[in-house]
Amino acid sequence: MIVPGFRAAAAEAGIKYKDRLDLGCIVCERPAVTSAVFTRNLVKAAPVLDAIQLFSGGKRFRAIVVNSGNANACTGMRGLEDCRRIRRDTAHLLGCAKDEVLVCSTGVIGAFLPMDRYVAGIEKAVSRLSENGLSDVAQAILTTDTRPKMANRTISVDSYRMTIVAMAKGAGMISPSMGPPHATMLSFVCCDAVVEHGFWQDVLNEAVDASFNRITVDGDMSTNDTVVAMASGIAKNPLENGTGILAPILREAVTDVLMDLARQIVKDGEGASKCVSVKVKGAKDVLDAELAARAIADSNLVKTAFFGQDPNWGRILAAAGRSGAVFDPDEVDISIGSVQIVNKGMPVGPEAEAEAAGLMKEEEFSVVVDLGAGSHDFQVLTCDLTDEYVHINADYRT
Amino acid sequence: MIVPGFRAAAAEAGIKYKDRLDLGCIVCERPAVTSAVFTRNLVKAAPVLDAIQLFSGGKRFRAIVVNSGNANACTGMRGLEDCRRIRRDTAHLLGCAKDEVLVCSTGVIGAFLPMDRYVAGIEKAVSRLSENGLSDVAQAILTTDTRPKMANRTISVDSYRMTIVAMAKGAGMISPSMGPPHATMLSFVCCDAVVEHGFWQDVLNEAVDASFNRITVDGDMSTNDTVVAMASGIAKNPLENGTGILAPILREAVTDVLMDLARQIVKDGEGASKCVSVKVKGAKDVLDAELAARAIADSNLVKTAFFGQDPNWGRILAAAGRSGAVFDPDEVDISIGSVQIVNKGMPVGPEAEAEAAGLMKEEEFSVVVDLGAGSHDFQVLTCDLTDEYVHINADYRT
Repeated sequence: MIVPGFRAAAAEAGIKYKDRLDLGCIVCERPAVTSAVFTRNLVKAAPVLDAIQLFSGGKRFRAIVVNSGNANACTGMRGLEDCRRIRRDTAHLLGCAKDEVLVCSTGVIGAFLPMDRYVAGIEKAVSRLSENGLSDVAQAILTTDTRPKMANRTISVDSYRMTIVAMAKGAGMISPSMGPPHATMLSFVCCDAVVEHGFWQDVLNEAVDASFNRITVDGDMSTNDTVVAMASGIAKNPLENGTGILAPILREAVTDVLMDLARQIVKDGEGASKCVSVKVKGAKDVLDAELAARAIADSNLVKTAFFGQDPNWGRILAAAGRSGAVFDPDEVDISIGSVQIVNKGMPVGPEAEAEAAGLMKEEEFSVVVDLGAGSHDFQVLTCDLTDEYVHINADYRT
Repeated sequence: MIVPGFRAAAAEAGIKYKDRLDLGCIVCERPAVTSAVFTRNLVKAAPVLDAIQLFSGGKRFRAIVVNSGNANACTGMRGLEDCRRIRRDTAHLLGCAKDEVLVCSTGVIGAFLPMDRYVAGIEKAVSRLSENGLSDVAQAILTTDTRPKMANRTISVDSYRMTIVAMAKGAGMISPSMGPPHATMLSFVCCDAVVEHGFWQDVLNEAVDASFNRITVDGDMSTNDTVVAMASGIAKNPLENGTGILAPILREAVTDVLMDLARQIVKDGEGASKCVSVKVKGAKDVLDAELAARAIADSNLVKTAFFGQDPNWGRILAAAGRSGAVFDPDEVDISIGSVQIVNKGMPVGPEAEAEAAGLMKEEEFSVVVDLGAGSHDFQVLTCDLTDEYVHINADYRT
């Protein structure tokens, strides 16, 4: 998967483990129009604080350096100084300005980066840069993920052909938030379109809001979440500022790519064996639909019932009932896939539940809750809560 | 444990399982001054809807009938009619009015009560009523609990001696809420004091707010939560309306009893192996302290780290950071018990963490987070999240 203008590579830097790819570098041959969104967690890791400062200038960027195994979070001034050193050293190797380099980290909180190994890793990665290197970076950024996550789209407008390749990592500490768009993991988007900066940020905001902001694994929001989208401009299409014919096509393509990655994240959620779409409809307004959908999608009792392949609609209804959404319980319908199991607040019967339980044996299924209170809906993608999730997270640091 | 004026008994009604106590009856020999709080879940079970209607009259009550194994929730008009039949039949057996009987249920949602067996169970329980029967009722109300939960206090004022005996059940679907006092499980309080009705409701509100409203097992709020406190008046003390010398003593004793039960519930939380007190202090106001304490206490990542005996303060800090509380991460101190592991937002070091991990081997320990932003605090009692929790809830209905 190649995007004109971009080269990438990964290296075994030994950040936390030996002999695995844990440091990646994505480089654009020219300053790329770059948009980004960051975690809304009050506790932000050093690289996030550093990147937010850089972005306040609205500048173009040449490179992303990213590592797994260490989040560089809760590391105080030293963490920030380490970020600056990484930017300076990378810029030196690439022959660009240090303010054109973004640093991202993911991994354990509260440990200093092993800077000697880190810097050696950058040198190794830069020496390996190639057009085909993006998939190695997708490998290098993984933590508790079991597989790399990539997605791509090609679009054509007039005689211009454009490519979008994106990657993401994230399996735990994954939760949507209800504020303005922000990321919930690491994701990098490379594109070769010629775009105006404000439009490119709008495209990312919309895409993140429709994708990463509507998934949950465990309801915990990370200190390091970052999504960066770089556009190299190599496609040489007329500058798109949001008013041209490329605009809707590009919006849709970037949203598609991030929704694809979001689904991959949920499917690879820590310990997850099921990917479940929870749709609340018939709400009196969108906020109510969102409150109910998120309460259901984050409920441990609902998620363990998914694991148990048990159409335990009582837990679903109880979660909606405590969500703050306003509705009449006697008007609620609930379906698993195409099988209705609750009609006007009461069970349809054991046969319907047996059929629904059959559908829940699949790796993917949907839950639709109709509140019967209006015409608004909201959908969240979640996974089940398994004993494997507990094992992964009880043993994470040992 | 005897409270003058009260008799109680339990029976094997076969509501869900055969040959276990699953129906209880608590009877006061005279109309008792009764206070109660109910779930704030929008989805309320039939017995809760029925009881709220009865309470709107502010009347005195003679009896509580309670069953486990079936929540009589999401059962529509038939569920309400079943409640009324239970009250009518019980009143007939006891020789009181049907509006003097309260019904409580806990168990599976969405199934009708087996009324023939239920009514036979009431008859059996009433035939067994005795002063010593409260502990049988404490046994009969259990669902996923592994042991009965009772607490008692005796208080003396002048020459009057008064007794409080209380019981509770609840192991899952246990979560505090942030609104006005309300219950999060079933709990019954029997007392023999002479009290004015409004004061008795105040006493219960305060006690619930300081106890059941500050615990969490899984963050899910039930459809059936109810706490009922009955005062028989047999102690013949001067009527207490909140202004007498008994008032503060009674408030403290009832609060003590419910805090005792709240702790028992957390210790017996589904799959729980640890009982952890999470205290947030140094907050700029009480709401911030509460937001941060609840976010930490409900975080799956924090709770799995408790299970893993891992002083993973990064997860604690990240949970506080997404809670909505306002603070400077560089001012935060975190301790496990007496061992400080975070100082001004940064780790104290591996030795401190090793010592903290040692404390976490205990069944009970405390986490103290000082936000360094003010002088307000809030404390929540939580448990760890274990693979056993997942097993219990994935298999609950099968």
